[in-house]
Amino acid sequence: MPPKSPGNDHPEATGTSLLQQAFDSEVFRQQGHQLVDRLADYLHQVLRRADFPVMPWREPAELRQEWQQLLADPLPISFVELTEKLLQQSIHLHHPRCCGHQVAPPAPITALAELFSALLNNSMAVYEVGPAGTVIEKAVLGWLAQRLGMAPGADGILTSGGSLGNLTGLLAARRERGGRDVWEESTCGLPMAVMVSAESHYSVARALKIMGLGSQGLIKLPVNERLQVRPELLETMLLAARAKGRQVIAIVANACSTSTGAYDPLPEIGEFAKKNGLWFHVDAAHGGAASFSPNYRHLLQGLEEADSLVIDFHKMMLCPALATAVLFRDGTVLKRIFSQKASYLLPEQQQVPWQDIARNTIECTKKMMGLKVMMLLKTVGEGIFSEYVTRVYDLSRDFATVLQGESDFRLAVEPQANIVCFRHQPDQVPAGQWGEYNARLRRQLVAHGRFYIVQTTIAGEIYLRLTLMNPFTNLNDLQELLAEIRHFGRLVCRQENQGKK
Amino acid sequence: MPPKSPGNDHPEATGTSLLQQAFDSEVFRQQGHQLVDRLADYLHQVLRRADFPVMPWREPAELRQEWQQLLADPLPISFVELTEKLLQQSIHLHHPRCCGHQVAPPAPITALAELFSALLNNSMAVYEVGPAGTVIEKAVLGWLAQRLGMAPGADGILTSGGSLGNLTGLLAARRERGGRDVWEESTCGLPMAVMVSAESHYSVARALKIMGLGSQGLIKLPVNERLQVRPELLETMLLAARAKGRQVIAIVANACSTSTGAYDPLPEIGEFAKKNGLWFHVDAAHGGAASFSPNYRHLLQGLEEADSLVIDFHKMMLCPALATAVLFRDGTVLKRIFSQKASYLLPEQQQVPWQDIARNTIECTKKMMGLKVMMLLKTVGEGIFSEYVTRVYDLSRDFATVLQGESDFRLAVEPQANIVCFRHQPDQVPAGQWGEYNARLRRQLVAHGRFYIVQTTIAGEIYLRLTLMNPFTNLNDLQELLAEIRHFGRLVCRQENQGKK
Repeated sequence: MPPKSPGNDHPEATGTSLLQQAFDSEVFRQQGHQLVDRLADYLHQVLRRADFPVMPWREPAELRQEWQQLLADPLPISFVELTEKLLQQSIHLHHPRCCGHQVAPPAPITALAELFSALLNNSMAVYEVGPAGTVIEKAVLGWLAQRLGMAPGADGILTSGGSLGNLTGLLAARRERGGRDVWEESTCGLPMAVMVSAESHYSVARALKIMGLGSQGLIKLPVNERLQVRPELLETMLLAARAKGRQVIAIVANACSTSTGAYDPLPEIGEFAKKNGLWFHVDAAHGGAASFSPNYRHLLQGLEEADSLVIDFHKMMLCPALATAVLFRDGTVLKRIFSQKASYLLPEQQQVPWQDIARNTIECTKKMMGLKVMMLLKTVGEGIFSEYVTRVYDLSRDFATVLQGESDFRLAVEPQANIVCFRHQPDQVPAGQWGEYNARLRRQLVAHGRFYIVQTTIAGEIYLRLTLMNPFTNLNDLQELLAEIRHFGRLVCRQENQGKK
Repeated sequence: MPPKSPGNDHPEATGTSLLQQAFDSEVFRQQGHQLVDRLADYLHQVLRRADFPVMPWREPAELRQEWQQLLADPLPISFVELTEKLLQQSIHLHHPRCCGHQVAPPAPITALAELFSALLNNSMAVYEVGPAGTVIEKAVLGWLAQRLGMAPGADGILTSGGSLGNLTGLLAARRERGGRDVWEESTCGLPMAVMVSAESHYSVARALKIMGLGSQGLIKLPVNERLQVRPELLETMLLAARAKGRQVIAIVANACSTSTGAYDPLPEIGEFAKKNGLWFHVDAAHGGAASFSPNYRHLLQGLEEADSLVIDFHKMMLCPALATAVLFRDGTVLKRIFSQKASYLLPEQQQVPWQDIARNTIECTKKMMGLKVMMLLKTVGEGIFSEYVTRVYDLSRDFATVLQGESDFRLAVEPQANIVCFRHQPDQVPAGQWGEYNARLRRQLVAHGRFYIVQTTIAGEIYLRLTLMNPFTNLNDLQELLAEIRHFGRLVCRQENQGKK
C-alpha cells in the first residue's frame, strides 16, 4: 500500500516519507484489524487449552541473541510476522493451566482500553492533558474506597505498580509520623524504622532503603504457623526497637502476603498502631479484591481503618499491568506528601487543585490507568469481581483438600487466598532433599510447557506454589498437574540415579 | 450477542455468566474491530485539522460529577457509546494545532503494540513471565546506547516514566558515591547533596526528597541567559557546599530542560564531575532523541560520558506513555543499586541473572515496554526519528524567526530544541502586566479549543510556551496561532476595561 499523506490539504505541512507512512490511518486500520483477528483467535485457542506450551521455554541467552540480530538487521519485518513471533515467545496467561505468578489474565475489554489510551496518550500530569482520564481516575478511586468500606473523605491516586504504591504509602507515613518536615529538612539524624511482616513483599524493604532508612529501618515482625503477623508480640517488638533508639513511624501488614496468601489480623494490628501513634499501611495489592466476594470479605475486616493501603488492578481485578490504587483514609494527606515549599509556588500550593494529579504522585506523565477499570465496570459490571474472587478462592480450598488426600503430597499451609503452596514428597526421595527435588522437577515441568507453576521459600524450605489466577482453571486441570508432577518427579529420580552411576 | 462459554469442552470449568461474557473471544473481536475503525477515522480527522476542539475544555468539577454519576448508575453502557464519550472528552495530540506539553502523538503502530502487550500481560519481573518482553527490552536498550555513542559495557533498564528514571539514576549515584553502603546502612548522619541545574525538572528535586536528602540536599546551579548551567561557577559552588559540610555526590545536567529546551554544556560539566569524583547524571528525557538527527546531534556532545542518563520514548520517540530508558555507562552498576544482603539470597545474588529484570529496578511487575519501540523500528525503521527530530527542531527555529519579525511579540530565549517560549506584549498592556495578560489570554484560547498551548515561568515571569511535538504542524498553523493570540489579547483587554467601568 503506498503511503498517503496526512494533512495533504496543507502540502507544505507533510512530513517526509517515513513519518507519512507511520501516521497513515489506513495502514493503522489494516494492521489493527489483522491484530484483533489474530488475538481473538489466540484467545479462543488458549482458553480452550489448545495443545501448545503455556510457557514456551527458550534459553534466555539464545532468545536474546535472536532479537538482537533481528534489530541489527536493517531489513523491515512484516507486522504479521512480528506478531506471530511474539505470540510464540510469550507466556500465555489466558491458558487455564497457567498458574504461576500473581498477574491477571486480563479481561479482553481492558486490553482494548489500553489501545484506546495508548493512541490518545493523554498524559494526565495536569487536567488539561487528560480531562477524561483525570476524572475517571478520581471516580474509580472513589468507587473502590467505598467498596472497601472506607469512610467518606478517603482519597487516593493511581500509580504504576504496587512497588511505587508501597513507596507512596511509606512516604506518607514519614511525612505524617516523622516528627518534623522530613520532605524539607532531610532524614539526616533521624533513625526511623518501620515494623513489617516477615512475609511482606520485597518492595516494602526496597521502599525503605530508597528512602534512606537502610536495613536498620526495617523491623521484621514474627509470624505464626499460618504465616500471619502475631499481634501479641507487637508491644515487645516496639519497646525493643525504641530501647535501641529507633523512631518507629509505621507498621505494615499484608492482605494478603505474596508468597503464601496469608491475611494478617488487621483489626488487632490497626488497633495497636492507633494506640501507639504509628501509621498503619496495608499491602492489599493481591488480596484487597476479596472485598467483592460475600464469602471472603471477612478476611479484610479492619482494612477500612488503614491509614494507607495499596491494591493492584493488575492482580485480582482482571486488568493488564500497570494500575495500582493507593488509598488514604484521610484523603487530605495527598496534598502534603509531596508538598514543596518553593516560595514562587506557594500561592498555588495553598489550594492544591485535585485535578492536577502530578502534584500528588511520584510520577509526572502518567497513563490513563483508570480507563480500563471503567470500561470493565461499565460494559460488564462489577459483579465480575465477586464471581472471579469467589471462584478462584474456592478452587484453592478444593485443591488443598485434594492434596491432603494424597499421601505423597504435602500442603505447606492451608490456603487463605488463591495461592496454594505444597510439595511432592515421595518415599524414594530422602527428607532432606525434598526442596531441591521439587525445584528440579519444576524446572523440567516448566520447560515441558503443559503447565506453568512457580516455587517459593517458606521457613527456609522450597515449596511449589500455584496462584490460581485463571477463572477457567478447574479441578481436572489440577489433578492432571499432580500426575505431571509425579511424572517429572520420576524423571528427576532417574537422572539422579544415573548421575550416581 | 449471547455470551459463549470459553472452555466449554470442560463444562465444569466454565465460570458464571459475567466471567464468560467478559472473556468471550467473539465479543472481543467485534469490539476490537469497532474500536480500530473508530480510531482510524479519528486519526484521519485530527491529522487533517478537523473542525473540532483540540482540547475540549470542560470545568473539572462538572466533568468529574458526570463520570461519578455514570459509575454509580448500575446500568451498563455500550462500548461504542463509551468510546465516543472518551473521544469527545480527551485532548487530541495528533491534531497539528496541539502544541502544549512534551507528550508524543504516538505513531499508531505503537498503540497496537500496547494492545498486544496488554492482552498478553507478560509482566516481566522474571524472565519466565515475559521471555520475549525481557529480551526485547535488552535489545532496545543496547541499540539505544549504541546510537547515543556509549561505549560497549553500557546497560540499563526500561522504567515507567522519567521521574522513576531520574530516581533510579540518583539511587545509583548514592550507591556509587555515597561513601558507604547506604542501601544497608542508611543515610542517617550523611549530609549528602546533589548539584542540579536551576532549570531541572521537578522530579529531580522530588527524587532527592524521596531519598531523604531534604531541601539541603539540592544545590541549585545558576544558569546563563540561554538558561544553561554555567560551568565556570561549578568549582565555587562545590567548594561552598563542602565548606557548609555537604557531601556532594552528583551533578545533574539537562539535555534539554523541560521548561525552555536548554541543552547544558555536557562536556564541561562531565569533565568537572570526573575531576571531582562526582556522579554525572543527565536528564535527557526530552532531548536525547536529537542524537538521531545529523543536524542536531552536536547538542548532545558529551552525553556518552554520563554515568547515568534518562530518555523517554514517550516524549520525542513517538511512543505512548510510559517507557523510559535509564542507561549506565558502566552497566555493572545495575547489579549493585538494589542489591540486598539477605543471607538466604546471597548465593543467588552473587551472580545476578540479567534476565530477571526486577532485581535491577524499582518496579516488580512491569509492562513489556520495549515492544512498542521494537515494533516501530522493525515495521517503519529508525530513520523516522531523524526525520521527526529534524523537522520539529527546524520548525521551532523558523517560528522563532517569525516571532522576531513581529513587533508585538517577544521571544523569551532562542530555541535550542522544539520548545519555543515567547509572549504577546502589545502597546496597550502596561509592561508590569504582560505575564498576567498572557496567562489570561491563554486560558481563553485554550477554552476556545482551536489550539492547545501552555505557559511557563522564566526568571519569575510568565511566558507562553509551545512544544512542537506534532510532525504535521506547519508555519501556517503557527501564523494562525499568532492571529488567535492577538484576538484573545484584544478580548482580555476589553474585559479588563469593562471591569474598570
